[in-house]
Amino acid sequence: RTDYQRCNDYFCRPKNTNIRIKLPVVCFTWQIAMIILFGVFVRYDSESDAHWPETMIQNNITSNTENDFYYRYPSFQDVHVMIFVGFGFLMTFLKRYSFSAVGFNFLIASFGIQWALLMQGWFGSLDPSTGKILIGVENLINADFCVAGCLIAFGAVLGKVSPVQLLVMTLFGVTLFAVEEYIILELLHVKDAGGSMVIHAFGGYYGLTISRVLYRPRIHQSKHLQGSVYQSDVFAMIGTLFLWMFWPSFNSAIAYHGDGQHRAVINTYLCLAASVLTTVAISSLSQKTGKLDMVHIQNSTLAGGVALGTAAEFMVSPYGALIVGFLCGILSTMGYIFISPFLEKNLKIHDTCGIHNLHAMPGLIGGIVGAITAATANELDYGKQGLINTFGLTGKLQSRSPSTQGGYQAAGICVALAFGIVGGAIVGGILRLPIWGDPADENCYDDEVYWEVSTTDTQHLHYIL
Amino acid sequence: RTDYQRCNDYFCRPKNTNIRIKLPVVCFTWQIAMIILFGVFVRYDSESDAHWPETMIQNNITSNTENDFYYRYPSFQDVHVMIFVGFGFLMTFLKRYSFSAVGFNFLIASFGIQWALLMQGWFGSLDPSTGKILIGVENLINADFCVAGCLIAFGAVLGKVSPVQLLVMTLFGVTLFAVEEYIILELLHVKDAGGSMVIHAFGGYYGLTISRVLYRPRIHQSKHLQGSVYQSDVFAMIGTLFLWMFWPSFNSAIAYHGDGQHRAVINTYLCLAASVLTTVAISSLSQKTGKLDMVHIQNSTLAGGVALGTAAEFMVSPYGALIVGFLCGILSTMGYIFISPFLEKNLKIHDTCGIHNLHAMPGLIGGIVGAITAATANELDYGKQGLINTFGLTGKLQSRSPSTQGGYQAAGICVALAFGIVGGAIVGGILRLPIWGDPADENCYDDEVYWEVSTTDTQHLHYIL
Amino acid sequence: RTDYQRCNDYFCRPKNTNIRIKLPVVCFTWQIAMIILFGVFVRYDSESDAHWPETMIQNNITSNTENDFYYRYPSFQDVHVMIFVGFGFLMTFLKRYSFSAVGFNFLIASFGIQWALLMQGWFGSLDPSTGKILIGVENLINADFCVAGCLIAFGAVLGKVSPVQLLVMTLFGVTLFAVEEYIILELLHVKDAGGSMVIHAFGGYYGLTISRVLYRPRIHQSKHLQGSVYQSDVFAMIGTLFLWMFWPSFNSAIAYHGDGQHRAVINTYLCLAASVLTTVAISSLSQKTGKLDMVHIQNSTLAGGVALGTAAEFMVSPYGALIVGFLCGILSTMGYIFISPFLEKNLKIHDTCGIHNLHAMPGLIGGIVGAITAATANELDYGKQGLINTFGLTGKLQSRSPSTQGGYQAAGICVALAFGIVGGAIVGGILRLPIWGDPADENCYDDEVYWEVSTTDTQHLHYIL
Repeated sequence: RTDYQRCNDYFCRPKNTNIRIKLPVVCFTWQIAMIILFGVFVRYDSESDAHWPETMIQNNITSNTENDFYYRYPSFQDVHVMIFVGFGFLMTFLKRYSFSAVGFNFLIASFGIQWALLMQGWFGSLDPSTGKILIGVENLINADFCVAGCLIAFGAVLGKVSPVQLLVMTLFGVTLFAVEEYIILELLHVKDAGGSMVIHAFGGYYGLTISRVLYRPRIHQSKHLQGSVYQSDVFAMIGTLFLWMFWPSFNSAIAYHGDGQHRAVINTYLCLAASVLTTVAISSLSQKTGKLDMVHIQNSTLAGGVALGTAAEFMVSPYGALIVGFLCGILSTMGYIFISPFLEKNLKIHDTCGIHNLHAMPGLIGGIVGAITAATANELDYGKQGLINTFGLTGKLQSRSPSTQGGYQAAGICVALAFGIVGGAIVGGILRLPIWGDPADENCYDDEVYWEVSTTDTQHLHYIL
Repeated sequence: RTDYQRCNDYFCRPKNTNIRIKLPVVCFTWQIAMIILFGVFVRYDSESDAHWPETMIQNNITSNTENDFYYRYPSFQDVHVMIFVGFGFLMTFLKRYSFSAVGFNFLIASFGIQWALLMQGWFGSLDPSTGKILIGVENLINADFCVAGCLIAFGAVLGKVSPVQLLVMTLFGVTLFAVEEYIILELLHVKDAGGSMVIHAFGGYYGLTISRVLYRPRIHQSKHLQGSVYQSDVFAMIGTLFLWMFWPSFNSAIAYHGDGQHRAVINTYLCLAASVLTTVAISSLSQKTGKLDMVHIQNSTLAGGVALGTAAEFMVSPYGALIVGFLCGILSTMGYIFISPFLEKNLKIHDTCGIHNLHAMPGLIGGIVGAITAATANELDYGKQGLINTFGLTGKLQSRSPSTQGGYQAAGICVALAFGIVGGAIVGGILRLPIWGDPADENCYDDEVYWEVSTTDTQHLHYIL
Repeated sequence: RTDYQRCNDYFCRPKNTNIRIKLPVVCFTWQIAMIILFGVFVRYDSESDAHWPETMIQNNITSNTENDFYYRYPSFQDVHVMIFVGFGFLMTFLKRYSFSAVGFNFLIASFGIQWALLMQGWFGSLDPSTGKILIGVENLINADFCVAGCLIAFGAVLGKVSPVQLLVMTLFGVTLFAVEEYIILELLHVKDAGGSMVIHAFGGYYGLTISRVLYRPRIHQSKHLQGSVYQSDVFAMIGTLFLWMFWPSFNSAIAYHGDGQHRAVINTYLCLAASVLTTVAISSLSQKTGKLDMVHIQNSTLAGGVALGTAAEFMVSPYGALIVGFLCGILSTMGYIFISPFLEKNLKIHDTCGIHNLHAMPGLIGGIVGAITAATANELDYGKQGLINTFGLTGKLQSRSPSTQGGYQAAGICVALAFGIVGGAIVGGILRLPIWGDPADENCYDDEVYWEVSTTDTQHLHYIL
């Protein structure tokens, strides 16, 4: 037999979804690694360390309210809800994959936030004198943000991979994210508080590329499970609404104290509201009798939040936010109607949750909106100090002009895209190895592969189908 | 044929629920109108504008924590959850109308908050020198409040109207609300932080009057869908609980900084707790075998929050709050048992969610409680400065006595009632025009009229019924 | 007939679950008692009283942000969500007991918080000059905490008791809690901000002991209802996730302002993340084919939060938090696999929700972790002022050494245990009286005993079983 055949045999042997050894081994090994690395590297920062009373005296801080905790904790909790309930429940729409949607989301996010604290810490929170990563509430928010990128990618492969593959995808995804984020935010000094580029465009293209590499020509064998039932659509609306409601917190969580956070909230609130109306309009237009499609309502209503991720803290003005939301609701819904079928048919990219339309494309739009609004910023709109605060143009950057900043913003989009696509291709290749316990084509979208499900439930399902 | 017959033919022609043109046209037109009006009128206020660092210097503000954002943002997010998850899921109790409940709630609230920012802005946040509306976090809260009035009205007509009708109802509802609110809060200088009168009484009577005008004598033709199934009742409890838990934020969100917000939370917390016990008691008493009714638990437990909307920030004292909750739990539950059937049979008011018992009646009670507690306020209980802060009796109002204030509070109730009933009658008349795509009598309470629902779901439903 | 027989007849007469008189009488009487006691005893504290502007001047407070409300309100709302949605929905996993889970949880928590404000107030917030209890936001948090203990106990007896019994259990539970808490926190001056001992160990053993006393040898007669269906497991995940996400708020809600709250959040966040990975690992290992069990994911992922309740605000360091979470995920999951069946078979303790594994055992571990970390605290890690703030070693306690503190912490565990077991035995005895309307062995875990459920629902259930 030729090498090719042998290779083919290796990759095409019957699927074994027994993960009784693989999953525990990965969980234990990685968690122990986390403990060791945290032991070596991670300490409390000055605001969460018990020496804070001394820090207050040294820095002439008179009130505990100045502890960053009180500026950011409410936003952090909202972001936390988005990561675990928002993303988790949004993906419960499949009729028989709700356990996996919410359970695997829980698993990979819990691992990802630990690894993100380390990776982002090495790049951004290292105390040069001690070599320790010092963490506070802002690091927790950033770790949640980082994980959001991986959860977006999860959406593209939902139902078609094993939890072990998801953990591998998260390990590499967080690593890539931290490097990409460092390049974009620190080296290029690009502003991206809500992560249109860093989170959504990266996560979107990372997931889509992985899905392309893992393409299954015979996925139609589990077509009967690839859809929703009435109750699962209602569950998914829990995810949609918590994402929608708390998106203003997402885009403002690490914005500048004071007017920066305040403005980011107003802009995101307005942008999302406009998205809802145009999503409904296009959804109704797309059906012969004007009926609405739950897929659109669950997803495209959120596109405005993604697309304002970069510019949320800028002076886009309230009507500017509405315009962005208006366009993104339209484009995202049309993405579900036209682009997703095109990607599947022509590019062999099967995108279970339609992350192209909710994250990848609106993320790119968000990057462009950010570049344009940054390039046109001026002292009249922002005030002298406001311009410096908003764009962080201090120190050696104080001579960077808004139009130069706009150029750097545009460069940031390219970096995010490149990391998503190249990273996704490599990680996709790793995930094709036939050792990860992924399901056979006829068992996709089925909780029974990885979860104990009672037999009455299974019979009931077969009845209603 | 006579004019009467022609008119009759016009109003009674077979229902056409195809909204493929109507709904998109309304959504697009209105959203474009919002963009234009926001472009002309709406700007950031001084606390969300990038000139905030200069404002801080000018006003000698030394800490960003003084930005109103940090006082109000946590409450705002809670209110936001009440509007979108609270109201949305509370109405999912119908067995086959959950998509519409949560989806139309989402749609009309997203439109309503934009229109409310404009309407309330013209009346309350206009910068006289520039003619611009300046918005900050308090405007966002007020817009959510305003929309709450329309969502209450939605509860009365749930299942019987089209989304286009709901949008029209919201357009007029927000308009009426803004005028009514201006008269009550500004002209009469009535205090109503949690909106017993302004939100609940107005919204309740607005909805009930519309429902009266739209009365369907043959609604019993869709009786098989007018009720809950097991799972839909559990979904509705999500709405109930998020409303119940966050009601302290609702009643305190725009209360006076410091003790005002603090006290409003304590009072609402206690009042709601008492409501739960008396609701359970009456619900159990109302059944032969003492079984509890989910309708009561889902709704009447919330009556205490409504009834303390006006007086939450007053010195009603903790036991006073308990007494209000005690009575409202009883009255609201008895409303479901006795008053709702009476209204339907004798006044032809069909009230799907029982908003009379949860909003209209408790709202009136709340107005009365507010008037009495305001009238009996005194310097001993409040302190000199406390009395001024709580009732805002500064400037030309500084000579208004508590008993006069009580009188104005009572006048506020009448204004809210008048706007609800007269406004509802007019809007109801508009909604009777046979152009809005409302469902036929035998298709009420059915998601399939306006939503894509899979055929297996439909078959399954028919089986279990 | 002998006395024994007569006694036996009394206790074994056929069950009467008609609670039409009992439940309303208890609800009304107790609520009226609350109103009277609140009228006599409860007033606003200085930060929620309208005299606050004067208090500010007297105490030289220059900003309203110093009002404790702004330090604690966001955490309070998170805790409130945990109590009502978290505990409520976590218990909806049973296939036919979701109404009771979420409804009775609502009822007893609403009563419990009122009674807790009184009991905890008498022990801790009494103004000696007036004899009044002065309440503010911290009292509301503590009342929610107190009720958590009773809701934990509810988990052990879920499905086997009547709402009247639950109210009795809560009345005594809150009373015992307040005394135990006073002894541990005030007399012994033990630190337990997140309540590992005070809440979880006490509540866990209180519930387990009651369940032992109420042991039903013929509970297998309702075995067909003791389990989950697909949808009920998804509902339960709503509870799990809201508990998991907001646990950092639980453990930090009453921690020291500034670094104390900040650190408690970081520690809890990390500990919970580690719990998830080891829970998944052990759950997968426990099944032949490596499939995951929803019971483990719903519960054991939370064990880390319980186990860090005492030490959350200490300088356990980030890796220390991970280690605690690592171990608790393992132990708790193994508890579900090995200990729960053992307890039922050998000790006749039937524990519906497995509170032994989620609360009782992790609570003990938390107490031990707290004792060890307190005993090893030192000025190097905490700083001089930090040590004083964290352990509250001021006044006559200023000479207490960390190792002595560790000893007191250990003593606290014993007090919590003793109150749980002895209190549970007494209350269990009271609940055995055949007057409370509890269900017959064949009607356990069935909502139809206490709730109006439509007949189509019932038929549907019988079909799918």
